[in-house]
Amino acid sequence: MTGDSQHSDDPQAIAQACSEVLWHNDPASKKLGMAIEKIAPGYAELCMTVADDMVNGHNICHGGFMFTLADSTFAFACNTYNQNCVAQHCTISYLSPAFKGDVLHATGREVSRQGRNGIYDISIVNQKNEKIVEFRGFSRTIAGSLLPHQQPSQD
Amino acid sequence: MTGDSQHSDDPQAIAQACSEVLWHNDPASKKLGMAIEKIAPGYAELCMTVADDMVNGHNICHGGFMFTLADSTFAFACNTYNQNCVAQHCTISYLSPAFKGDVLHATGREVSRQGRNGIYDISIVNQKNEKIVEFRGFSRTIAGSLLPHQQPSQD
Amino acid sequence: MTGDSQHSDDPQAIAQACSEVLWHNDPASKKLGMAIEKIAPGYAELCMTVADDMVNGHNICHGGFMFTLADSTFAFACNTYNQNCVAQHCTISYLSPAFKGDVLHATGREVSRQGRNGIYDISIVNQKNEKIVEFRGFSRTIAGSLLPHQQPSQD
Amino acid sequence: MTGDSQHSDDPQAIAQACSEVLWHNDPASKKLGMAIEKIAPGYAELCMTVADDMVNGHNICHGGFMFTLADSTFAFACNTYNQNCVAQHCTISYLSPAFKGDVLHATGREVSRQGRNGIYDISIVNQKNEKIVEFRGFSRTIAGSLLPHQQPSQD
Repeated sequence: MTGDSQHSDDPQAIAQACSEVLWHNDPASKKLGMAIEKIAPGYAELCMTVADDMVNGHNICHGGFMFTLADSTFAFACNTYNQNCVAQHCTISYLSPAFKGDVLHATGREVSRQGRNGIYDISIVNQKNEKIVEFRGFSRTIAGSLLPHQQPSQD
Repeated sequence: MTGDSQHSDDPQAIAQACSEVLWHNDPASKKLGMAIEKIAPGYAELCMTVADDMVNGHNICHGGFMFTLADSTFAFACNTYNQNCVAQHCTISYLSPAFKGDVLHATGREVSRQGRNGIYDISIVNQKNEKIVEFRGFSRTIAGSLLPHQQPSQD
Repeated sequence: MTGDSQHSDDPQAIAQACSEVLWHNDPASKKLGMAIEKIAPGYAELCMTVADDMVNGHNICHGGFMFTLADSTFAFACNTYNQNCVAQHCTISYLSPAFKGDVLHATGREVSRQGRNGIYDISIVNQKNEKIVEFRGFSRTIAGSLLPHQQPSQD
Repeated sequence: MTGDSQHSDDPQAIAQACSEVLWHNDPASKKLGMAIEKIAPGYAELCMTVADDMVNGHNICHGGFMFTLADSTFAFACNTYNQNCVAQHCTISYLSPAFKGDVLHATGREVSRQGRNGIYDISIVNQKNEKIVEFRGFSRTIAGSLLPHQQPSQD
């Protein structure tokens, strides 16, 4: 029995393995200092600290970096079923500004998954648990899987 | 007569001056290699080349960087009236992927401006003029202006 | 003590009283056969049966009627604080079709309320609990209240 | 030669014929008093007068009816290629209220059509040409066509 076949039955193990493949393939999220905190089927939590080069002259975080955190959380949440899943459309609402040094925590949960279409809601809060961003992402399953094909066991 | 008072009457001069203030205050856009190509009242064009560290393992540009280009174009377009204007809500639709080395060109135009609310549409195309992204941004005017107060002329 | 002053302290009583004022003032929702099932602060449940004249030649409900059910549920949910609240922007996603005779049940809950801005999510399911629609509404508080001014108690 | 084969080559004739099929199959739009003003490939104009039973106690048109006008205009614009096309997702922004007796004019134009996905923008203005609504609709082509199969000519 190979290590890969371990995740063949368990949704949580599949979700975890998918997130490792996705993370390995995503240098941008790494470079922005994101970290994965929790993965489950249809669910992801990521965090990121607002760095010096993410803010404008008033120390307010550029919306693009908050979007990127939400978007990565969305990607990790929708790619937990070993089926390649891409973003089609996203909406973001800015509720409060984030400042240099803030620790942003993004939680992504599945709202719906029917056929090839999925909807995921991502909320970002700061270290004081104040809501910073609400994001809704619309995904579409495409051809292909994230995990390598499992070999039949040899023994 | 001071230099500042030059832009007091001409909408194009005001738009141009606002974009210079905004650009000076936005190290993130600069760091991503964006450049302003055109500014007019309610209108902005920016470009950005997809750099090595903007792509994933398949050389496809991370959605967050395309969002950031659209979002900056939106900010430059809505901040052309010397009234501070912030993003409230944005939607982005991904039409085609962008790849490493692609030159992305974003055009932002005003759809509506009533009271303190504005709507701006931003389209991103690549160097072959293929549509990559459609973005719609909803802005809100807040207190304050971008340009320094104009001194009455002294002579 | 007057009847009006009953709702002065209790958020649930205020929410209930607001919904009665709103319902009285909304002949369109009544005419479409909607009924209120539950009201609480930031929360509303409404139902509606897909009537003969809401469907097209294939007996599929026109999207506009599903939107109207979601929109009314949104209005009832955001107008539960005795502050006039209007829709600014809404998004609707169609997950499955609804057919003639289906009983649609809409649940609206508050996602966020900061300053004058609110976000509300409305889900519509049919009688088999299948998801038909996901709707997100963005509200803004405006001047005025729903309930008549409370008289000081006379005794 | 049959009448049907007339529209086989001409995009405008196909668009026109599709709109007639769609209109015939849409009693809801008819019942609300809508009228088609112009049809072209990827384009539609419809109008509707705000009737007594579309308004609330303050004579302001219920958002659901404005949405329905925009949604129908979207459906007519995206179904002009003789390929069945459905709404997946829509966003609506309310810019100004409409009142009883207002004549609303909706213009829908294609923003993008790539593969099976389309984006259409619909603007609604009143009789004074004031903007009332901006709507963006996301369509998806599904199996089937609107027009009956064309017979090969017999002579």
